[in-house]
Order: sequence, then C-alpha cells, then structure tokens
Amino acid sequence: MSTACLIIIGNEILSGRTQDKNVAWIAKQLSDTGIHLQEVRIIPDIKRVIIDTVNICRHQFTYIFTTGGIGPTHDDITSDAIAAAFGVPLERNPKAAAILEHHYGKEQLNAARLKMAEIPEGASLIANPVSAAPGFHLGNVYVMAGVPSIMQAMFDNIKHELKGGKKILSRTLSAFVTEGVIAEQLSQIQDQFPDVEIGSYPFVRNLRLGTSLVSRSTNATELDKVYDHIRKMLLTITPEVTDEDLAA
Amino acid sequence: MSTACLIIIGNEILSGRTQDKNVAWIAKQLSDTGIHLQEVRIIPDIKRVIIDTVNICRHQFTYIFTTGGIGPTHDDITSDAIAAAFGVPLERNPKAAAILEHHYGKEQLNAARLKMAEIPEGASLIANPVSAAPGFHLGNVYVMAGVPSIMQAMFDNIKHELKGGKKILSRTLSAFVTEGVIAEQLSQIQDQFPDVEIGSYPFVRNLRLGTSLVSRSTNATELDKVYDHIRKMLLTITPEVTDEDLAA
Repeated sequence: MSTACLIIIGNEILSGRTQDKNVAWIAKQLSDTGIHLQEVRIIPDIKRVIIDTVNICRHQFTYIFTTGGIGPTHDDITSDAIAAAFGVPLERNPKAAAILEHHYGKEQLNAARLKMAEIPEGASLIANPVSAAPGFHLGNVYVMAGVPSIMQAMFDNIKHELKGGKKILSRTLSAFVTEGVIAEQLSQIQDQFPDVEIGSYPFVRNLRLGTSLVSRSTNATELDKVYDHIRKMLLTITPEVTDEDLAA
Repeated sequence: MSTACLIIIGNEILSGRTQDKNVAWIAKQLSDTGIHLQEVRIIPDIKRVIIDTVNICRHQFTYIFTTGGIGPTHDDITSDAIAAAFGVPLERNPKAAAILEHHYGKEQLNAARLKMAEIPEGASLIANPVSAAPGFHLGNVYVMAGVPSIMQAMFDNIKHELKGGKKILSRTLSAFVTEGVIAEQLSQIQDQFPDVEIGSYPFVRNLRLGTSLVSRSTNATELDKVYDHIRKMLLTITPEVTDEDLAA
C-alpha cells in the first residue's frame, strides 16, 4: 500500500489568517492515484521544526509532500531546511537559475529571486508553469509552493511519477436520519465487511438533521455490497435516501 | 508562553471529502487568547494513531485540542483512545448520561446514544448547547466534536479557563508589488525587530500580482514601528498601499 503524509509549512495557516485549501485538493488527487493520505501536519516556518518533522515522516510514509516556504523572502526557509534534513548542501541549481533568468530577465533577477534557485544537492526540479520558480523532489519528499494555483500546477507535473495502488473508490448515501438511530445496524454492516471503511457524518440541511454514510474501498464488489446493505437499512426508516454521487 | 497543538481526527478530512473549517476558527480564537498554535495534526480514525499522537503531543505543548470522533457510530473512537492514552478506564459518566436522557427522552436513549456518555475516568465535561452530547477535558487535553457549529459552541464554553499570555497583535499591509522586489529590504526590517514576526504572502487580485505583509507580535510598540517601516518601504515603490485591517 502506498501511503502519504502532507506537511503544510506556514505561519499564516497556524495564525488563522489564511484558510487552507491545499489539504482537500491534494487528498482527492491522492485518492484517485490510489495513495492513502494518512497524516497531515501543519507546522510553522521554524527551521528546526521543519527538519525534525520531515525526518520523522519520510521514514514512516511512502511519499511526503510539502507546501509553502519556497519563495524569495526571509520567511521562505523550506529549501534550506530540506537540505539540512537530508544532510546535503543547498546549491545554486543551474537549470533553476536559467528558468528564473528566462522568466525575469537578467536585469530583474536580483539576489532575492536567485534564492529560489538554491536547491538541495541531488534534487530534481518540479516545473512551475504559473510563476516559473520551481519546486523539487529529493528522495521521497516532494517540495511544492503554498499558493494553491501554483501548487496544483506543480502537482499535475509530478502525478504521473507517483506509484499508487488500486484507486480508492467511494459511494455515499445520505438520509434525514440521525446517527443514533442507525449506529447499531451500521456497526453490524461494518463488522461484516472489514475491507470497506464506512464513515458516518452528521449534517444539517434546510434545518433538518441528517447523516451521510461514506463507504470507501479499493474492492468494487465489496463496496457495492455495502452500498446495498446501507441503502436497504436506510429505506426501512425513511423513503428519502439520496445517492450523493448521482446527485452531485 | 502558552502553546497549543490541534489534533483533527477524521478520515473525511484525509480523504478530501470534507473541507476543514476548524483549523482557521480555532487558530483565531487562540491568537485572541494569547495562546500560540504551534502545530496541527490531521489523523485518521485509528485507535493506535490517536493514542500515540495524543501522548507525543500532550507532553510537548501547554494545551491539546482534539476535534472529531465523539459521536454514537462505530467510527467514533476518540473517547476510547483518549482513555487509553491516559491509561484510565472509560466509564459511564452519570452527569453525561443524565444530559442525554434529558435531551433524547428515556425511550429514545438507545445503546448507541448512551455510548456518548462513556467518558474517561477523571475527565470534566464540556457542555454542548447544540446537540447535548458533551465533550470533555482530561489533563491538558480538550476533546470536542468535529461538526464546526458544535465545536465552536463547546470552545466558547472552555475559553474562559484557558490561560494565555499577552494577546497576539497583528497588522497587515498590502500592495501590488512582487515579493522579489521587496525581499531584501523586508529582511533588513525583520533583522532589526526580532520580536515581531513578519510574514510575506503573495496574492493575485483582479489579475494583478501583489504581496500582503503580516506583522505579528505581543509587543504593540515594536509592532507599530515595524508597520511604519514596511509602509515607508512600500511607498517608495508604489503609492497604492492598503492597510488590510482598516480595509476589512
């Protein structure tokens, strides 16, 4: 099984200033690729914390993705920290420098912008079609920008090289029933089908309480069986059962 | 300094199904209380992972807040995991049971719902004015619901007992300048005022590239000095400088 950990580097998320949008987007992409996102860590722009987090996580998961901290300002310290985590020097990457020179022109390529060409030794670049300054990957660690549009463009460029397992399939049924009413029967279905992960999520819609039941598995046959069981169970309580995937 | 770690427990966030809204909300509340949110971990509904994460984090930070996994269904295992993390038994909490009986009525209080009264020994309850089933706190760990409206109501009930330091103040200036142009001067300002944390965040607004500069500190005098320096620096490049706090 391919697993992943996402490390979001950025004081702006931890201060509540910026609403994160990268977790949900990357999570969906990984599901499609058959990679199980098992943990997300949001950490501050502190070199020691980045080094320790990367070094703990990279031995624990198949893939590590980081976002944030690869720009030209003083608070962009991710590249430096990743180099330190791997015990390799940061070096002026000629390919990255050429990309930046092409983008900014020789005149505008000042020292701060050139900092974005400082890449850990041995890393491969990740192309950035939005704003030129590349990300990179070293070992099993993929380092991307924090701005969602740039991160997404970078991820599109690495997706083909990620090795996932079977795609994780999902089916969702919703009904205006409360969790407490169905919990026991749902638990029995879960016990019967251990290869399917059933999640139960309460919601409020038009002032009515309801529950969404999300089944996830790489096994389509088992998933369909669970879907049928949940549907039958819900229909004994209410005729109003919605297939969210069809509704969407 | 009071520090905090937020642990979001929920497969629905890791699968990308649900967009998290709890991180930003809690982060803002903690800033107001003078508590530094230093890390967020998003982890799955797996008992071993919850136990290990809580036990690592609770020795590292002043406060731990968890969200998710305290409902009536099979995938709600947070209370059980917290009890195991502290090495205490889960027990039927008479006060919690009474709250649930009052809310649901004796007839509707089935076994699944009563599960929400199973609280680790020695924990104090956190009132839930939205849907009755309480959260709890044990040692420095505060356990809350995952549904944002319920979590927020619970947090409002514990806020008064959290001991923070000075409120973390923040001032933000934005301008249509790119980071590479101001990086060097900004770095000099940062070096001059180490007690203020300056963050630089690029944005795109009406197809124009710009940068927001966020200064944060508990020291109002230093913060004002940094604000003035940044404002002067930006005005040498463009007359269009926006004070985001006044604009908001």
